[in-house]
Amino acid sequence: MPIITLLTDFGLRDTFIGVMKGVIWSIAPHAQIADLTHEIPPQRVVDGALAIAGAAPYFPAGTIHVCVVDPGVGTARRPMLAAIGNQYFIGPDNGLFSLLIKKAEDLTTSPVYIALNKTHYWLPQVSNSFHGRDIFAPVAAHLASGVRFEELGDPFENPMLINIPVPQRTSSGWVGQVMQVDHFGNLVTNFTREQLNPSTRVNIFVKNTTLNEVVATFGSKPAGDLIAMFDSIGHLAISVVNGSAADRLGVRADEPITITLKSEQA
Amino acid sequence: MPIITLLTDFGLRDTFIGVMKGVIWSIAPHAQIADLTHEIPPQRVVDGALAIAGAAPYFPAGTIHVCVVDPGVGTARRPMLAAIGNQYFIGPDNGLFSLLIKKAEDLTTSPVYIALNKTHYWLPQVSNSFHGRDIFAPVAAHLASGVRFEELGDPFENPMLINIPVPQRTSSGWVGQVMQVDHFGNLVTNFTREQLNPSTRVNIFVKNTTLNEVVATFGSKPAGDLIAMFDSIGHLAISVVNGSAADRLGVRADEPITITLKSEQA
Amino acid sequence: MPIITLLTDFGLRDTFIGVMKGVIWSIAPHAQIADLTHEIPPQRVVDGALAIAGAAPYFPAGTIHVCVVDPGVGTARRPMLAAIGNQYFIGPDNGLFSLLIKKAEDLTTSPVYIALNKTHYWLPQVSNSFHGRDIFAPVAAHLASGVRFEELGDPFENPMLINIPVPQRTSSGWVGQVMQVDHFGNLVTNFTREQLNPSTRVNIFVKNTTLNEVVATFGSKPAGDLIAMFDSIGHLAISVVNGSAADRLGVRADEPITITLKSEQA
Repeated sequence: MPIITLLTDFGLRDTFIGVMKGVIWSIAPHAQIADLTHEIPPQRVVDGALAIAGAAPYFPAGTIHVCVVDPGVGTARRPMLAAIGNQYFIGPDNGLFSLLIKKAEDLTTSPVYIALNKTHYWLPQVSNSFHGRDIFAPVAAHLASGVRFEELGDPFENPMLINIPVPQRTSSGWVGQVMQVDHFGNLVTNFTREQLNPSTRVNIFVKNTTLNEVVATFGSKPAGDLIAMFDSIGHLAISVVNGSAADRLGVRADEPITITLKSEQA
Repeated sequence: MPIITLLTDFGLRDTFIGVMKGVIWSIAPHAQIADLTHEIPPQRVVDGALAIAGAAPYFPAGTIHVCVVDPGVGTARRPMLAAIGNQYFIGPDNGLFSLLIKKAEDLTTSPVYIALNKTHYWLPQVSNSFHGRDIFAPVAAHLASGVRFEELGDPFENPMLINIPVPQRTSSGWVGQVMQVDHFGNLVTNFTREQLNPSTRVNIFVKNTTLNEVVATFGSKPAGDLIAMFDSIGHLAISVVNGSAADRLGVRADEPITITLKSEQA
Repeated sequence: MPIITLLTDFGLRDTFIGVMKGVIWSIAPHAQIADLTHEIPPQRVVDGALAIAGAAPYFPAGTIHVCVVDPGVGTARRPMLAAIGNQYFIGPDNGLFSLLIKKAEDLTTSPVYIALNKTHYWLPQVSNSFHGRDIFAPVAAHLASGVRFEELGDPFENPMLINIPVPQRTSSGWVGQVMQVDHFGNLVTNFTREQLNPSTRVNIFVKNTTLNEVVATFGSKPAGDLIAMFDSIGHLAISVVNGSAADRLGVRADEPITITLKSEQA
């Protein structure tokens, strides 16, 4: 029985997530369900796209990811399934899977996209505001129970893609930005280890502060120091050792980050 | 093996919920456990009653719901089990199951109530402050393991019922109230689709604002608009499209909502 | 298949915990996973040590507890496993298991400590900032799958122990402190039922307030009263009946608590 993961902006205050599990287990009683997170900021599709792209690689083949950040719920936006690599992604066709699709360009087999339009795999009553419960959870459960993904709807091309900001070249380096602030107050940027040669010596500018090196680990510096390092999925992050860079610098998502090469400077 | 759900006001900061799962799995190793929510506002039995009544219908027959919002823990209030329809509800006899019991008036079979007084189904040591761990979790686990519910205690009549506010008729319409504010800042009222004929044209008054229609979906209006619509379990809700009505209006639970019929107005 | 529990300071905002479950289920597909809490205050090893020591006794023999409060991640601090009683504890060797080890002095069999240094039980790539994903989760999963704990690394003596404050004797009684504030605003102190003979009549001083008795239950006093009682794991706690003592008194962790014997006073 495959694993089903849930990633939403529903929070944990209400019973939304518990109800989705009830729907899933009513159809697929033995499914294992993992919460990825339910604290995506409301309606922030970009944050959801980053989160699922970072988490999915750690799940086994066959895993079914249900992702619901869905400002267009109840409108004409299409419910969809994407079969990418050896995993399945179910949610609204609103760009949530943009990063996964972009990464899939490296795969030998192309993704397949299914418009979920076979209503007998949905709950009998479909509300206008909770397709996580009424469409996405039951479809995921049927898939987990052995229904082939091609039976859940009709194939389509060109799912919606959203622009995920990437660093831009400048005359003296690059300008990127903070993509998200994590639980510890680390500022996760859109610079990656692949983009920045880790051996390169750089200056990093954030707000009124300059960092002159990329360290290898929190332990390289004493508690309280502001550092830059690559995080656990290879993004450049600005951190305070045993503290919160977000609090220290007063910085939030979308803050610009400028990087210059030291060799270019003097 | 039946599903066990947990609904409490314990929050997720402490290990209360994890410990309840340890107790359950010590007795019923294969039970599947779903968290409904643990963010019921502390001691708000009404909020717990609304939450369990809204969530239970999405779980399969045989599900065991453990509900603990229990300001009277350690006093003479009775621990109870209610067998309603084809599900079980375990918790304090303090009104938590009032809405479920009221809805059960429509069922062909009457609920059965059991006073949980067979202490050999409890933990050996019972504290005065954590019956979720010491009584309710082990009783649920024994029930999941095959103990018949009648063996868990003695039947009784007339469990405690609490008053859940319902809209009142006025000379020009009704006055109801906001029952809860959800994670998105939607104001969930105690008006239901059944009470308000959806085809009826109404004016809705909340604080200093008037809404002149009930829309079908968030997508009917542009982002930022204040709207009224029926939510995913049929309650009238006041929302801001892709925003928070609670923040916009500065409204919390218990705020009055007045509705008048348009035909009565002019 | 044993239970695996997770206790961290990672919060639920990011996908850290979901990813750890993906890693575990990739190796041990049938492991049951319980979240103990992920809201340990960041880097507060003492809080983690208290939490795991209070929760572990409610889990069955064979349970594997993964505990990650790890300000030294990426430094030379050792990843470790402790076999204590009939359970396993996996995490950094930084004092997280101090209380469990201290309590184990009462056991007939001594704990065994393993330095986790067999890298083929880790993920192939190990980051410098997320050993929960890269080392602790896969080691726990291999243990759950049947690998003997002795195979996961080499035995060592003398794991790091941290000082957990205990009440000190004074001329007229003791001085202790608030160890943590729970979800309800209860002030959990480091006085235990064993230390204070419950039949003893005491005065309890916290900030500018005196309590003259230890009550048996919340129900002993009306809502809103400030009380002292022993909590569900035997610690003396200061509470407001159906309210928050932390809010009422403006008190947080580390606040001193002074106790005098009444018989010594007059």
